[in-house]
Amino acid sequence: MKKVAILGPGLLGGSIALALRAAGGHFISIWARREDAAQEALQGGFADRASSNLVELVTDAELIVFCTPVDAMPTLAREIAPHVLPGAFITDVGSVKAPVVTELGAVFRGVAHFVGSHPMAGSERTGMAAARADLFHGSVCIVTPEQDTAHDAVVAVSGFWKGLGCRVIEASAALHDGRVAWVSHFPHLLAAALVDLVAQEEPGAFEFCGPGFRDTTRVASGSPGMWADILCSNREALKKTTDAMIEKLREITTLLDSEFPEQSMREFLKQAKAQRDRLHLPR
Amino acid sequence: MKKVAILGPGLLGGSIALALRAAGGHFISIWARREDAAQEALQGGFADRASSNLVELVTDAELIVFCTPVDAMPTLAREIAPHVLPGAFITDVGSVKAPVVTELGAVFRGVAHFVGSHPMAGSERTGMAAARADLFHGSVCIVTPEQDTAHDAVVAVSGFWKGLGCRVIEASAALHDGRVAWVSHFPHLLAAALVDLVAQEEPGAFEFCGPGFRDTTRVASGSPGMWADILCSNREALKKTTDAMIEKLREITTLLDSEFPEQSMREFLKQAKAQRDRLHLPR
Repeated sequence: MKKVAILGPGLLGGSIALALRAAGGHFISIWARREDAAQEALQGGFADRASSNLVELVTDAELIVFCTPVDAMPTLAREIAPHVLPGAFITDVGSVKAPVVTELGAVFRGVAHFVGSHPMAGSERTGMAAARADLFHGSVCIVTPEQDTAHDAVVAVSGFWKGLGCRVIEASAALHDGRVAWVSHFPHLLAAALVDLVAQEEPGAFEFCGPGFRDTTRVASGSPGMWADILCSNREALKKTTDAMIEKLREITTLLDSEFPEQSMREFLKQAKAQRDRLHLPR
Repeated sequence: MKKVAILGPGLLGGSIALALRAAGGHFISIWARREDAAQEALQGGFADRASSNLVELVTDAELIVFCTPVDAMPTLAREIAPHVLPGAFITDVGSVKAPVVTELGAVFRGVAHFVGSHPMAGSERTGMAAARADLFHGSVCIVTPEQDTAHDAVVAVSGFWKGLGCRVIEASAALHDGRVAWVSHFPHLLAAALVDLVAQEEPGAFEFCGPGFRDTTRVASGSPGMWADILCSNREALKKTTDAMIEKLREITTLLDSEFPEQSMREFLKQAKAQRDRLHLPR
């Protein structure tokens, strides 16, 4: 798997390119919608070839990685499907998997091997300028094969992520989406809701921010367009998490209203700490 | 203000000691409840003198800094009040200010000058082993004088924090508690609630954690005892923030249920990003 085409020159596409470059032995192509972005990728040393001509870039690729927003993927997939190498491996980095796996799986069926991926790495920063060769080191990457996905393709795509430093976990697209709603999509919504609430209810409090607020709300500085796309693509799961949080906050209100809340609060915080302290977290 | 007594050898007390040491020219005393902790502070080079004998440590101090849990402060204050230097400056680092200012203000009235402080610095890590001389660099420190606080005392305590690298803001204790509920206490509760919910509803999701979950929940690894104390001391403000978040999450559910949520979601996220991006955040 030496010829790799990366579609989309953002933080993830750029970081994949830098990681492959650092590993050596790959011919890296980057597609960007705008020709000037493609030229920047080339001049920045991210790629051996970069262009806004999609078909030209994918025809000889043994691996194609979709690094565009999720809602742009189906159109691009249909555009390249007649031109990809027969048997090429194709994956993506989308944060929602069920719609991507369904649509791209159908487009490439019988033509090439599509396997969905979601590396749990990123930043609130966007664009190739924020890319890092070690972005994936120590990250989990969830690979989401379907029942009819060829074993070779799963091995190839998993191997690709392992080569970038990821720990690979296989899961169905549906399981992925349900779980990632809890540890990524809903935390994102919650961070944005918190910032929005402070702005609305007590904007002077922004003057008093410390490292706790900085970290709990970091993700709220992420790309609104990309995240609106992700959150709306997984809205059924998000509605469940939101309802569950409303219920949890009601419990907490009851606890705070009790006559001697200290003991219950300590127990609640102790359990949360114990759960969090045993997580295997990136860096 | 050369002779400083630090009561409590934790992360904050230890970091103040290291910062004063680095600045030079201070005689630093540390009080610890347990004599072995006092000896550790001494052997670790945090202090010129350390002991579990409270009275002995404070009699010659020109500045006394309470770095113990908030609920331990009144008892210690009553114990030292008859022994402090007349006119000494006294402050604390408690995360809740109204009860501390009321109680310690009353204990030291006519004896010494108490001014409450809250440096917005810290870590989920605890204890002197986590202390850092630069912990306060670039932090906001809120100083909470009362109407009858001597101007000299406010200048002295503010100057102390500025010397440690803080940007000082003055506010009443009540204003402090209302605002800090929004940017510290409630975010802490929310982080613990999120971890607790995932453990309860979808524990397998913990396998899929990336940097977003790591950061949004970092504070949930803080000390349960210390935080139960803080949260329960500020529970009226916390009930308001919790109710407001329940309302906000209901709005978000309505948004997700609308026919075309993408546009509204993008607007919501865009506003939250704009608010957060213009905050003056520590490092």
